[in-house]
Amino acid sequence: MTQSSTRNRRILLASRPTGWPDASNFNLVSEPVPEPGPKEVLVRALWLSVDPYMRGRMSAAKSYTKPVEIGEVMTGGVVGQVVRSNHPAFKAGDIAEGSLGWQDYAVADAALLRKIDPNLAPIQTAVGILGMPGMTAYFAFLEVCQPKAGDTVVVSGAAGAVGQIVGQLARINGCRAVGIAGGDDKLDYVKRELGFEATINYKTSNDLTKAVAAACRRGVDVYFDNVGGPVTDAVFNNLAFKARIVICGQISQYNLDKPDLGPRNLRYMLINRARMEGFLVWDWRDRYPEALKRISGWIKEGRIKYSEHVTEGLERTPEAFIAMLKGANLGKALVKVAEPQ
Amino acid sequence: MTQSSTRNRRILLASRPTGWPDASNFNLVSEPVPEPGPKEVLVRALWLSVDPYMRGRMSAAKSYTKPVEIGEVMTGGVVGQVVRSNHPAFKAGDIAEGSLGWQDYAVADAALLRKIDPNLAPIQTAVGILGMPGMTAYFAFLEVCQPKAGDTVVVSGAAGAVGQIVGQLARINGCRAVGIAGGDDKLDYVKRELGFEATINYKTSNDLTKAVAAACRRGVDVYFDNVGGPVTDAVFNNLAFKARIVICGQISQYNLDKPDLGPRNLRYMLINRARMEGFLVWDWRDRYPEALKRISGWIKEGRIKYSEHVTEGLERTPEAFIAMLKGANLGKALVKVAEPQ
Repeated sequence: MTQSSTRNRRILLASRPTGWPDASNFNLVSEPVPEPGPKEVLVRALWLSVDPYMRGRMSAAKSYTKPVEIGEVMTGGVVGQVVRSNHPAFKAGDIAEGSLGWQDYAVADAALLRKIDPNLAPIQTAVGILGMPGMTAYFAFLEVCQPKAGDTVVVSGAAGAVGQIVGQLARINGCRAVGIAGGDDKLDYVKRELGFEATINYKTSNDLTKAVAAACRRGVDVYFDNVGGPVTDAVFNNLAFKARIVICGQISQYNLDKPDLGPRNLRYMLINRARMEGFLVWDWRDRYPEALKRISGWIKEGRIKYSEHVTEGLERTPEAFIAMLKGANLGKALVKVAEPQ
Repeated sequence: MTQSSTRNRRILLASRPTGWPDASNFNLVSEPVPEPGPKEVLVRALWLSVDPYMRGRMSAAKSYTKPVEIGEVMTGGVVGQVVRSNHPAFKAGDIAEGSLGWQDYAVADAALLRKIDPNLAPIQTAVGILGMPGMTAYFAFLEVCQPKAGDTVVVSGAAGAVGQIVGQLARINGCRAVGIAGGDDKLDYVKRELGFEATINYKTSNDLTKAVAAACRRGVDVYFDNVGGPVTDAVFNNLAFKARIVICGQISQYNLDKPDLGPRNLRYMLINRARMEGFLVWDWRDRYPEALKRISGWIKEGRIKYSEHVTEGLERTPEAFIAMLKGANLGKALVKVAEPQ
């Protein structure tokens, strides 16, 4: 924990990775703390979120938004504390959430900040279950997948920030959740603590298609995909009639040196009359308040739990990010930057 | 053309092909003409339909329905004439359509036959534009793809029985149709006669992704896929935001010795928030009358045309079927078996 300072540590994109990112792709610099202009707010980071989508922003390939440029601060969601405000909506000491990047201090347009009530929940949930990952789980599962009680719901990346919530939403909706992840500790957790009914360790399974078949005897009604690649191939081989698939992430593909080849699976869409949709949480932002209210209620009632994987220190954000890409996290991957004053 | 006879030529499945089917997979036998039982109808085939789905029925792999067994008559849609009827809904001389298989004569449950009015349209359209291919084009395009005026609609297998109709439905709905097929004669036809605005010959293009990009400068809003494989990969590289994809067939994959590998494309679903659905026309059978009425109207008004590719003689059905799989047909592939009496 650093004390409030006149220096602003910033982690910039130094180069674009091919394959796995490493420390050399990032550049830690120290600059003066910026001054907020009219209507602007100066925010000091307390918590940083590291998320799979950031790997996409490091690349110049076409995606749903523009990449981070070389020399720019890395993008990322932050929960921070207002240091100085030139906008009536915020005062010093307020807690706020916004896309402020990998840095100690950021100046932000007040309209792009969300005020967080620290009495309602731990403030870091504003980038977790009560933030982007929670909104993603809620809308992608409930709206796109249209679960019905009795459905078998397979979740890849089941112990990640989004996956752990999806399995619990499945349980609340009377579905049977089957989690796929890459470690027995993670799978034990989602089964014992979160109420997933069955689990598959994709790293130790020697026949994923059979493992999915064994866990889903009447086929897969809903597939919530965070992962892609061979895990997704195995699920395709087990789709049920009228299966619904949401493509929420493809983390297995983000760090490949060159694009992977896989079986052509579209025939399974046809024979099962399945439906698949690509999902981006921004498209649902007008309805975030509804989701926040319902998820908060479920947390209070003890019906939804969540876990966090915390790394301490802004300077360790690249390390935390790469570890998350490699699946080292159980639950939401966070970097703790500073304590509130 | 054979005269009415007491013998029934039947083409049975002799063996299951691996890869391309050939003549050895079929067995032509001659049996006595069957007798209709109570409530049954004896129908003599006049026209046989050969369609891509039949390749799936020759295989024991899991599909949306059970395969043809070895020694069973090959499945297929037939337009025929009633020879003898034990059901009040049909009388001798009536024209009927049903799934009667590759044979001169079949006994059918009257409930599974559709009576055809020969004064409304050429009777063979009951297995073409006013039958399964027409219903497929209508519901898969209008209901699943939800076209909007101004959309760019790419159709693979554009000169086939279904594809030729889809392009015209696109035009009628104010969309821009781009056809992909494997021959300049076919592409000239769909452009000149059917109103497709642009065409791509996938056999002669040396960069399909660039060819699709050039034909679809604002991306592909709707993709009607009859084909799969590299053609579909090229379209995925050019999807527009909120693209809609219907998987209606995957003919490029049906005759592979072993499953093909291709690029993993699900990332494009995500970044474009695209929607994909698998389609089977049976699911829409309750609404066939609506589609028949509207398509008939468009044909009468000259707004929809269709072409047929006719092979003469029941015994040549395997040859016609294999040629259709290889893309030799322009329009609906049919076998003419006999003239009505």
